[in-house]
Amino acid sequence: MSSKEPLSPIERLNAAMDSGELRQVRYTLNNSLRPVEIAHLLDKSPPKERQLLWGLVNKDLEGDVLQHLGYDVQAEILSRMETREVLEITEGLDIDDMADLLQQLPERIMRELLQTMDIQNRTRVEQVLSYDEDTAGGLMNTDTVTIRPDITVETALRYIRRHKEIPDMTDSLFVVSRRDAYIGILPLTKLLVSDPDMLVREIMSTDIEPIEATMTDSEVAQLFEQHDLISAPVIDEDGKLLGRITIDDVVDVIREDADHSLMSMAGLGEDADTFAPLMRTTRNRAIWLGINLLTAFIASAVIGVFEDTIEKVVALAVLMPIVASMGGIAGSQTLTLVIRGQALGHVERSNIGWLLNRELVAGALNGLLWASVVAAVAIIWFQDIYIGGIIAAAIVINLIAGALAGTLLPIGLKAAGIDPALAGSVLLTTITDVVGFFAFLGLATYFYS
Amino acid sequence: MSSKEPLSPIERLNAAMDSGELRQVRYTLNNSLRPVEIAHLLDKSPPKERQLLWGLVNKDLEGDVLQHLGYDVQAEILSRMETREVLEITEGLDIDDMADLLQQLPERIMRELLQTMDIQNRTRVEQVLSYDEDTAGGLMNTDTVTIRPDITVETALRYIRRHKEIPDMTDSLFVVSRRDAYIGILPLTKLLVSDPDMLVREIMSTDIEPIEATMTDSEVAQLFEQHDLISAPVIDEDGKLLGRITIDDVVDVIREDADHSLMSMAGLGEDADTFAPLMRTTRNRAIWLGINLLTAFIASAVIGVFEDTIEKVVALAVLMPIVASMGGIAGSQTLTLVIRGQALGHVERSNIGWLLNRELVAGALNGLLWASVVAAVAIIWFQDIYIGGIIAAAIVINLIAGALAGTLLPIGLKAAGIDPALAGSVLLTTITDVVGFFAFLGLATYFYS
Repeated sequence: MSSKEPLSPIERLNAAMDSGELRQVRYTLNNSLRPVEIAHLLDKSPPKERQLLWGLVNKDLEGDVLQHLGYDVQAEILSRMETREVLEITEGLDIDDMADLLQQLPERIMRELLQTMDIQNRTRVEQVLSYDEDTAGGLMNTDTVTIRPDITVETALRYIRRHKEIPDMTDSLFVVSRRDAYIGILPLTKLLVSDPDMLVREIMSTDIEPIEATMTDSEVAQLFEQHDLISAPVIDEDGKLLGRITIDDVVDVIREDADHSLMSMAGLGEDADTFAPLMRTTRNRAIWLGINLLTAFIASAVIGVFEDTIEKVVALAVLMPIVASMGGIAGSQTLTLVIRGQALGHVERSNIGWLLNRELVAGALNGLLWASVVAAVAIIWFQDIYIGGIIAAAIVINLIAGALAGTLLPIGLKAAGIDPALAGSVLLTTITDVVGFFAFLGLATYFYS
Repeated sequence: MSSKEPLSPIERLNAAMDSGELRQVRYTLNNSLRPVEIAHLLDKSPPKERQLLWGLVNKDLEGDVLQHLGYDVQAEILSRMETREVLEITEGLDIDDMADLLQQLPERIMRELLQTMDIQNRTRVEQVLSYDEDTAGGLMNTDTVTIRPDITVETALRYIRRHKEIPDMTDSLFVVSRRDAYIGILPLTKLLVSDPDMLVREIMSTDIEPIEATMTDSEVAQLFEQHDLISAPVIDEDGKLLGRITIDDVVDVIREDADHSLMSMAGLGEDADTFAPLMRTTRNRAIWLGINLLTAFIASAVIGVFEDTIEKVVALAVLMPIVASMGGIAGSQTLTLVIRGQALGHVERSNIGWLLNRELVAGALNGLLWASVVAAVAIIWFQDIYIGGIIAAAIVINLIAGALAGTLLPIGLKAAGIDPALAGSVLLTTITDVVGFFAFLGLATYFYS
């Protein structure tokens, strides 16, 4: 994109970095880019450049830049900072953003940091920290604007005007009792068009259930999407208003949730830093390769059982990857569809039966279609009618196995509390490899002996 | 989820459907569920149930339900409707939602529908339709609230109070000239805390650039995320205010973009209906399987070249899937990381070199690590020191090939205007299969002959 505009700040920055004029770089960085753009630049810089650039960011922007970085990049930068520094740069942040950053720190340093805060901030941060990161409590901010139900619209407007400014993303005021119990919300748009003599109680809305602090962030996201919310109140188990969640944080949840399946299916973390240093990348990938190697050895062991048959009919060795691959591809399609369906809340006990049935029949039909193509090719290629029949049967069997595994694996894994996106694809390949090789070579052994 | 609550509307509905009391179902459906929940229920229902349920939805809710359905489900239902019916149920919708639905219809029916609208609505819908679905113009709605710059805050407040209601998701008023040229935005929160005697011109904000109608929806989403926007003005090339985009529509774009990579990599459309009918599913999958079959045949052809060697050393047939599989897994990890990096705007000409270099070295290092493990196992298994060396070398070569293909394929495909998520994985597997088999069997032929 940067190549379209003639002289974007990013390009000026690159030019300055190339020419090594650090003073120029520092100026452009801090004066032409907004914190979110600096964060994006850091996210897409290799480690050394990133460290250099971070060193050039003005102290007063650091906190703001930090909160916009990818998680892994954040953690990397925080790990190199002194406690005092972390305190300084997080001072001006929103409570929820500060809590997010603190959660990246080691427990000891976090405690130390909390000790140095003033009592009001500490109480607020501790409240957010007391909830899991992946819950409504962990997502919320405490910057609510509250009013009482028994005042008039006119009084409410006057009360608001006394604020110097209203927090960003405030589309509604929260109506609370004298004891801070949540009663309802009053959208600003409603307040602006209502008769000044009406009571807040008369115009407030109680349609939207407040969010309990323990609700998971994915459920919160679903709620926001279904009701087209901009902000929503968060309450504790006694109905007391704790804070609010705003759409900007929900958008992050939606993006992470969506990224999660894609990255997990390749054995990558959804927070993975595109430009992670070599050794970290190597280490993280090694584990996934090791797990998949085990799978490959299992497949090899199955082939090993049929060594004698392959020695007799070497065409089997040539054709066997086709059987395994077709089952794997078909199974992956089912697996991906079901995992996406789970994420969207589409898959539940009542419709698994229908889904499994459709996948099995679709697998069988496609199996028959492509099996006949493969059979024809195999017969012509090896001038052997048996091998055509054997591979056709094996492909149909393996596509059905792929459909079965692709549907039931994610459902079983989820029920067992294991992430289907992470474990599903490895297990699926193991199954389609084993079934594919076993069916093909087993049938061949039967017919050629 | 539904199993937790004792008697949710959905469960009552299921019970009623099981007992076949359609009247009960109709009542629960229309009176206990909101349109978005009815849509979710339809989305997760198999075809027959879906058709039955759709028939029970009250006429006045149909439009609202329809716009919340998944695209494929929408298209299916629209395809069975008469022009007149479509007109009736879309009458009350927002202009952008109506335009979205109209785009699902065949050209002829769409024209027919437009003819029957009143002139004001037709002009608005045609304006939105004149822009591509995937642009800001296609995303926008025309329900803006505009004011002039030279009135006071007090006058502005009085003007707003004259509205019976303000459209949902209105967080800002748009300041426009007498000729509707966009000048700036005035957040409601700012309006509420400003001195009544100030002029709109003095308190409005001009920080945010208005969005040009031709901007792509992904760029719009980035803008919203970077600036934490709730709504933003859309202008034409002359700077005239056309409408506004709201965060709820942007959230849909973000979800679709994120879904796109996951689904495409498995050869599925991001709009795919989880409960698509059997024949549609079978047909869609058949194409992808056919493409992958071609890949598998290419791999088989490579193996076929080395038939004689395999006949001599049958252990090669047992071990060869390991080489192909390790290269494929390693390559997929790189490919996924790069495709995600492209979606996040991280990958560009200036950092491709670093990325490629890291991937190559990480591939080589992991190649060395796992090659030695595989070599040890192979030597012990087949009591043959040669085969250990050969498979080790082949694995290192294939992991490097995987890293190379995983990095360069998505970059090359994107530059050629081909979707890397769709074509990348098939091409990658072809490369790692061919390189893997060729390296392993080729080296074996050299050493064993």
